[in-house]
Amino acid sequence: MKQIVVIGGGPGGYPAALKAAALGAKVTLVEKNKLGGVCLNCGCIPSKSLLDAAHRFHTARTLPALCTDGAQAAAEALYAARAWDKIKSRQQAATRKLTQGIAFLLKKAGVEVLQGTGYFVDEHTVGVKLADGTEKTLPCDGVILAAGSEAFFPAPFDRLKDKIYDNSTVFEMPALPESMAIIGGGVIGCEMADLLNALGVNVSVVEMQPRILPLEDENAARVLAQALSKRGVTFYTGLSATDCTAREGGFTLTLSDGKVLQTQAVLAAIGRTVDLSALHMENIGVEWNRKGVKVDPQTLQLKNDIYAVGDVNGLFQLAHAASRQGEVAASNLCGVPAVYHNESVPRAIYTSPEIAAVGLSRAQAEAQGIPVKSHKAFLLANGRAVAQDQTEGYYELLSDAQTGRLVGAVLAGAVATELVHAVAVALAAQMTVAQFKEVIFAHPTFAESLGEAAAK
Amino acid sequence: MKQIVVIGGGPGGYPAALKAAALGAKVTLVEKNKLGGVCLNCGCIPSKSLLDAAHRFHTARTLPALCTDGAQAAAEALYAARAWDKIKSRQQAATRKLTQGIAFLLKKAGVEVLQGTGYFVDEHTVGVKLADGTEKTLPCDGVILAAGSEAFFPAPFDRLKDKIYDNSTVFEMPALPESMAIIGGGVIGCEMADLLNALGVNVSVVEMQPRILPLEDENAARVLAQALSKRGVTFYTGLSATDCTAREGGFTLTLSDGKVLQTQAVLAAIGRTVDLSALHMENIGVEWNRKGVKVDPQTLQLKNDIYAVGDVNGLFQLAHAASRQGEVAASNLCGVPAVYHNESVPRAIYTSPEIAAVGLSRAQAEAQGIPVKSHKAFLLANGRAVAQDQTEGYYELLSDAQTGRLVGAVLAGAVATELVHAVAVALAAQMTVAQFKEVIFAHPTFAESLGEAAAK
Repeated sequence: MKQIVVIGGGPGGYPAALKAAALGAKVTLVEKNKLGGVCLNCGCIPSKSLLDAAHRFHTARTLPALCTDGAQAAAEALYAARAWDKIKSRQQAATRKLTQGIAFLLKKAGVEVLQGTGYFVDEHTVGVKLADGTEKTLPCDGVILAAGSEAFFPAPFDRLKDKIYDNSTVFEMPALPESMAIIGGGVIGCEMADLLNALGVNVSVVEMQPRILPLEDENAARVLAQALSKRGVTFYTGLSATDCTAREGGFTLTLSDGKVLQTQAVLAAIGRTVDLSALHMENIGVEWNRKGVKVDPQTLQLKNDIYAVGDVNGLFQLAHAASRQGEVAASNLCGVPAVYHNESVPRAIYTSPEIAAVGLSRAQAEAQGIPVKSHKAFLLANGRAVAQDQTEGYYELLSDAQTGRLVGAVLAGAVATELVHAVAVALAAQMTVAQFKEVIFAHPTFAESLGEAAAK
Repeated sequence: MKQIVVIGGGPGGYPAALKAAALGAKVTLVEKNKLGGVCLNCGCIPSKSLLDAAHRFHTARTLPALCTDGAQAAAEALYAARAWDKIKSRQQAATRKLTQGIAFLLKKAGVEVLQGTGYFVDEHTVGVKLADGTEKTLPCDGVILAAGSEAFFPAPFDRLKDKIYDNSTVFEMPALPESMAIIGGGVIGCEMADLLNALGVNVSVVEMQPRILPLEDENAARVLAQALSKRGVTFYTGLSATDCTAREGGFTLTLSDGKVLQTQAVLAAIGRTVDLSALHMENIGVEWNRKGVKVDPQTLQLKNDIYAVGDVNGLFQLAHAASRQGEVAASNLCGVPAVYHNESVPRAIYTSPEIAAVGLSRAQAEAQGIPVKSHKAFLLANGRAVAQDQTEGYYELLSDAQTGRLVGAVLAGAVATELVHAVAVALAAQMTVAQFKEVIFAHPTFAESLGEAAAK
């Protein structure tokens, strides 16, 4: 029976452990903090709970338009009564429930979970500094490294680490601040801007690139920027923070154009960094830097019987990419060859409107020499969108202009994060736009706009 | 240039007209009432606007759990201020916008729209009684009949037609009644029960079959029945109304088990009926009854150059089925062979939780001799569902146990009406469950439960 050690119990590590166990290995999973990792404890899940709460409050504020004239006061009283501690408790309850779910699955699969910090003694030995202070040595046939990443604090924020928030501490805020400056207009920055704004915080976003969501489609980013601006979020794009000073009750932030912002709180959402110093990578002769380690992008092999999945390998810092990588790595380690396809990973941003994408972007396709044809439908003409007053945005399919084959999609608007999977399925099936157009879409659904796009 | 007449401007007729025009025909569309037909004016669209409004009010009532203790009063005041006339106006505005959209598309395509009642003079001549009282005769090369259906009032409701509501008049109610008895627990009955309940109406549903949604999956129907019961809807299943008497301020309803219900209003949602008496079908030698006419289920041909689409052919009384049929019929009439696939039509029910299905049901598959394997995932284990408190329901895939090929799906729960299309795409691509399982689903999404189901 193969002995496998998984270092890290986040969205990369626990699916790897489950897969290896399912393939007959004896698995030990070492987690230094909480099962579920950043994603479950201070990332994807808490943010979705908070976004949902925020959007519920936002929805309630639309109701006076459907009420008798006196309702505005009631709506404002309800909004004014929002309680951060209860919103936070709900989020913690969701996280707790899902963590218990993972613990249950691991137990059921016979995976041993050790609470502690794992490190390499050599290629076939993992040491663990257990939470109770003792040490344990695990001889093994292979290791899956899924140690994750942490928030990145470049200057001038590095010396304020304990005073400003990052993605893990922001969910534990004792109270909602009056104002929040979010440094970084990427996915985390935008989701936090959306939810804090909806909860009544005065939000500014500082993004060094000329626009928010610099890694996503420009038009989709514009849809979101317009929606959030309209709701009162202030964007400072093309600017960086050159100085940040803590003062009584807040911070003074200086931007690269000399502008000075006063804010009660600061959230660093600048990016992630990998720190493997506790892992003793030198014992297995593997180099690493803040972007992580270099693996084979298809097998996830790091070296011999050692695989690395999730944020530590820098392929795609997304929970579901990590999960699939974990499964693929476990398969390969257990002798069942499997391949990971980085280009099949969908991206989802849970703002309102939502943004999602899958496959190649226009730029990526063109870089591969593919002549791209765009097929775009605006939600303004969608029956369900009109009926529900959710007409912001568009769905766009991209195809190879020569072969007609679908190569990717960008969805900006309601239900985008879910409907992107209809295209993900089509990409997996290597469908052409003409074949996709033959699918019958129920009326009235947002999905019809995918069909309308395909018909263009 | 081919001259084509389309009788009926609903979801069957107007796509037929647009398709025929796109294929080079000169098209006249005859509509006796409003463009968009029942679907747009008194069906799919108004109900979705009302369901959205109702669900917004429902959402607002969940907020006190996330508020300081005093918020209950504000939430109740906001709910009490709901104004049916404004909810109705919003719905009418949506309908108006979409009707204008259809008028614009038809005009752009060069389709002539006549306001009046069309009828057959012979196989190549359509007469029109115009709205202004004059008559017009249209010689033509072919006809697409898309005359639709109307609400069915069997005894004892036939003699109360003017006093009780049907799907068209219910959206025009002068005020929300205190109580509503809905006769029929099909799709319309359930959607109306959901929205009226959420708007504070005391709702009873009478369904002759042993359960609601008799045409849909039994487990899915149970999920909805439980959810609506919990919210206060009373179901009388396995019972029919044997008597209904109008009295001062309401109705007395007698059920087949002798039970007597008092209700302020009654909604007939028993089914649809086709009435082609004004069409003079005898002039083209075609028989019809209340279920409509008999067409070739693949080409939609009724007789020679006459095609029939939508509710009049009884294949599938759904707007998007009608639309696809309209396009296929127009293609065939214009000499571009096309085939309609009735089994590819998804079904969507917009209740909360939603229910949707596509492909074969278990019973249909078994009737075809296919050994069915079920792959089911409950939303209780879904990260987004837990984070958003929407854990009711499940997603189920059905496959051919021998070949592994997907044959259908039933989704009961949040986003079901949209996500059903991910399976519709997979069915169109003739994917196996194993291939579907390879799709990477973004975390956290409801769609992950499709992936989880496939892995079972």
